[in-house]
Amino acid sequence: MTFTLSQRAQKLTSSAIREILKVTERPEVISFAGGLPSPDTFPVERLREHTQRVLQETPTAALQYGPTEGYMALREWIAARHSSSASNVLVTTGSQQGLDLLGKVLIDTASRVLVETPTYLGALQAFSMCEPQFVSVPSDENGPVSASLAELARDARFMYCLPNFQNPTGRRIPLERRQQLVDIAANQGLLLLEDDPYGALSYSGDALPTMHSMNPDQVVHMGSFSKVLAPGLRVGYVIAPQSLHRKLVQAKQAADLHTPSFTQRIVYESIKDGFLDEHIPTIRKLYGERCTAMLSAMSRYFPAGVQWNRPEGGMFIWVTLPMGMDSTKLLERAIAANVAFVPGAPFFANNPQANTLRLSFVTVPPDKIETGVKILGSLLEST
Amino acid sequence: MTFTLSQRAQKLTSSAIREILKVTERPEVISFAGGLPSPDTFPVERLREHTQRVLQETPTAALQYGPTEGYMALREWIAARHSSSASNVLVTTGSQQGLDLLGKVLIDTASRVLVETPTYLGALQAFSMCEPQFVSVPSDENGPVSASLAELARDARFMYCLPNFQNPTGRRIPLERRQQLVDIAANQGLLLLEDDPYGALSYSGDALPTMHSMNPDQVVHMGSFSKVLAPGLRVGYVIAPQSLHRKLVQAKQAADLHTPSFTQRIVYESIKDGFLDEHIPTIRKLYGERCTAMLSAMSRYFPAGVQWNRPEGGMFIWVTLPMGMDSTKLLERAIAANVAFVPGAPFFANNPQANTLRLSFVTVPPDKIETGVKILGSLLEST
Repeated sequence: MTFTLSQRAQKLTSSAIREILKVTERPEVISFAGGLPSPDTFPVERLREHTQRVLQETPTAALQYGPTEGYMALREWIAARHSSSASNVLVTTGSQQGLDLLGKVLIDTASRVLVETPTYLGALQAFSMCEPQFVSVPSDENGPVSASLAELARDARFMYCLPNFQNPTGRRIPLERRQQLVDIAANQGLLLLEDDPYGALSYSGDALPTMHSMNPDQVVHMGSFSKVLAPGLRVGYVIAPQSLHRKLVQAKQAADLHTPSFTQRIVYESIKDGFLDEHIPTIRKLYGERCTAMLSAMSRYFPAGVQWNRPEGGMFIWVTLPMGMDSTKLLERAIAANVAFVPGAPFFANNPQANTLRLSFVTVPPDKIETGVKILGSLLEST
Repeated sequence: MTFTLSQRAQKLTSSAIREILKVTERPEVISFAGGLPSPDTFPVERLREHTQRVLQETPTAALQYGPTEGYMALREWIAARHSSSASNVLVTTGSQQGLDLLGKVLIDTASRVLVETPTYLGALQAFSMCEPQFVSVPSDENGPVSASLAELARDARFMYCLPNFQNPTGRRIPLERRQQLVDIAANQGLLLLEDDPYGALSYSGDALPTMHSMNPDQVVHMGSFSKVLAPGLRVGYVIAPQSLHRKLVQAKQAADLHTPSFTQRIVYESIKDGFLDEHIPTIRKLYGERCTAMLSAMSRYFPAGVQWNRPEGGMFIWVTLPMGMDSTKLLERAIAANVAFVPGAPFFANNPQANTLRLSFVTVPPDKIETGVKILGSLLEST
């Protein structure tokens, strides 16, 4: 067999997370490695009803090809939630596809693309298909630092941000910082991509205003039903200014024609009567309890010199080990002891910090969180 | 709002077919323009049962994230049908996504890509995202002519073919021609992409061997459940040699993580007990009858000088008008008379033939086929 791979394919490497997840499928492993929502939160009975209703009331529309833009009623619902118009909303096959499409219509080879430090690995993978030059914006516990942004923004195609409970760090960008970023973006003509799969998952208090709501002409907003309903349906969305939306629709048509009509209509059945608004607080409560359990165990078992944040929502805690320690080496020992996590290095577009790691707590019951953190703590003590 | 589009996005144009379909949604229009399967063929009652079974027996797996490669049982079933191995099978979000992924891993800017004359518009759109140089291989009523292929194959990344009841022409590549193409491909080190969404839809007689079955090391095979089960589920697949499969999996992960777990499992429920094999003959019968009705009406109403083929399967008839006639102009008059079709020009990668058009008969009942063809015939008479 002979064939020539494209330049981008020659550079492709598999996701470290996915490879690790394969190892951790053994039931005896306590895995803090996943990015999966807890299946305890899936409203199975409701989805059964909604699915039946879709197949009873609109079987042909649910099973036939549909418009590339998505199911109109769903687009209207999404638009209303974001003070936007359905004509700005594109339904995507998970919000991951939004990243693929935005990369295609905005990135040329060597285009400058600004990302947080660290950032979502899946976004780096999606954008990499268009071979950009990634620029890591210096970031602190409140997200990207605005001081250097005006300089870095020059000739950049966009800046990619996760404002709420970021994957991998769990951090949230505070209101004041959001406003600074939006102001600089407007001044510099910098497009902001706001990826918000976790925004609904705050443990307490109200959601912060999206950057999109502060300037819908300069901020593209991405959302998802994966973390609040079920990821196996693969329904996400992109809200973009008209001129960009039209190009995204064309790119989407070439990519998969449209997102399954069937799953879009099931999602719509689940939201139209307000069910999602009743359902989300149960997810927040579960995740908040598990986060608290993990933070409590970490404070008891992790040795001095190890640092971590206290997330206000979402699915992840970010851990920084003492300088010089390598979390990949720790992972080898952890897996031998039947505990898994994700090393932090792959989440950096530049200058990976080998002494960082990501812990997910949402799929692990509190007693196993206790056991797993205790094991990690003893491994860290003995390093 | 200021932003810079990528080169590829600046070149993007909307599908002529999609734009026309929007016009033809009025119920009074007799539309031969669609590429949609007939909803009369959707096994709604069965899909209702299968959906319920999936949500009863494996709700968590159906609603959770799943492997990028696809649901293993489904991959094994597909592999068995193609004398392949599950490790060569990637489940895709419709076979359109297969085109997107293959383009990404095989095409660099200005790479030579061989296509039939004419070819599937959606493939041109998908591959265009990677900005290749398209080379139209001279083709006759039996598909691409092999005489010139050895010369054209030089430095080409691949040749893209639809061997069965091609969209748009409805033609099938005969066995002898398939073998010639496979032999030349092997001699020249040319990768063949075999796109086969319509292969199961022959009106009579057995299916011809796939080119993939003749040389699985040199031929990538794409298939779909859209035309035999339901397109709204968006489930297709790519069977590729190992080294290429691995790259496709990585590209797929970046594109949408995976195809919905839910729809994959519904498809598997529909095939595992042999239901699809009982179901497909009913589609063949319906489409064969409607094809016959259209051919009969064309022979009675179309004037001398208009030529067309007699498909042995699939959804399309290809019409060639006398030289100098423009089917786009005919379309304007046809739509004014409430009949629609698709002009042929957009299906050509180079040198569009303005005097061609595509007719689809599968969604139109015989009495409306008669009426619509009669109207087209009278418009052609008066041109």
